Amino acid sequence: MASTDLEYKSSSTQPLPAGVDYFKADVILRFMLLAASVVALGVIVSSDQTELVLFQGNLVPQPAKFKYSPAFVYFVAAFSVSGLYALISALASIAVIQKPEFKLKFLLHFIFWDALILGIIASATGAAGSVAYIGLKGNSHMGWIKVCNVYDKFCRHLAGSIAVALFGSIVTILLIWLSAFTIHSRVPK
Amino acid sequence: MASTDLEYKSSSTQPLPAGVDYFKADVILRFMLLAASVVALGVIVSSDQTELVLFQGNLVPQPAKFKYSPAFVYFVAAFSVSGLYALISALASIAVIQKPEFKLKFLLHFIFWDALILGIIASATGAAGSVAYIGLKGNSHMGWIKVCNVYDKFCRHLAGSIAVALFGSIVTILLIWLSAFTIHSRVPK
Repeated sequence: MASTDLEYKSSSTQPLPAGVDYFKADVILRFMLLAASVVALGVIVSSDQTELVLFQGNLVPQPAKFKYSPAFVYFVAAFSVSGLYALISALASIAVIQKPEFKLKFLLHFIFWDALILGIIASATGAAGSVAYIGLKGNSHMGWIKVCNVYDKFCRHLAGSIAVALFGSIVTILLIWLSAFTIHSRVPK
Repeated sequence: MASTDLEYKSSSTQPLPAGVDYFKADVILRFMLLAASVVALGVIVSSDQTELVLFQGNLVPQPAKFKYSPAFVYFVAAFSVSGLYALISALASIAVIQKPEFKLKFLLHFIFWDALILGIIASATGAAGSVAYIGLKGNSHMGWIKVCNVYDKFCRHLAGSIAVALFGSIVTILLIWLSAFTIHSRVPK
């Protein structure tokens, strides 16, 4: 029994020897999510466009801003949160590379928060995408006119922002997969 | 060393003795996701409403259907997928309760697919929610009129369906948390 005790002790001082280590990929993915959030925010915030629109016989300057639609405001709020989260969790991930004894606990927390952030940014991407689609195509059944033929720069910015946001959502799914796979690889078969 | 070998063997024949078992909660959550998907689908599919609308001086019957909006079509497709997935994965989860040696492998697959389904249904909920919000409030900046004052039953069905869909998204996040926690609890400290 003494040899068993020794075996146990030696394996507990060497922190988690079995299993694969994907923390570097984790850090890279988190910085990609940060970059995607910042780019999506920057592109949608800079989308304001003012055009002359015919209104009661006169051409009046009429601006298009992202803050006119609650869906785009939610989009900006969601990606502000995800950008901040990506920054904090990337720093935490770097810290864990230097202190490997906390790896497992952090991985569990990462999955928890990643799943929540995925829910938030996926719904924001869907919300902004559907409103932008109405702007692009209109909806004749509801009597909603398209606006992208007038506000071309506004819609280009929206499309770019939503495409980057979709990329960010996919990165978040990859983050969950990576964390799950890393925890799974540490379980004794 | 012989005693260590014995120790190893006895722990490998008893499949995964350490760790907590939340498979019953997993099955319950999966059936809740199935129920949420079916209810959300049923309520939105039965939302058709025809009203007399003034059009060029005449009252003409004008229907409102979910299939007139691409966002609602995506919503129906997404929750058809999630309902089917919830049914299959609930059956798989029940099968795993009876064959516990496959638990760990299934848990990893569950997280993979749950994360993907979460991305799909969260974006569908966001898309449908933002279009329904335009229907409810309109958007004066874009010149989009509200339609819910005319199509009251249609909008009530939409609201109910989206609320149930939101509940389904939260259940999916809980499923990811539960699987992650179960895998995590099996890792030796």
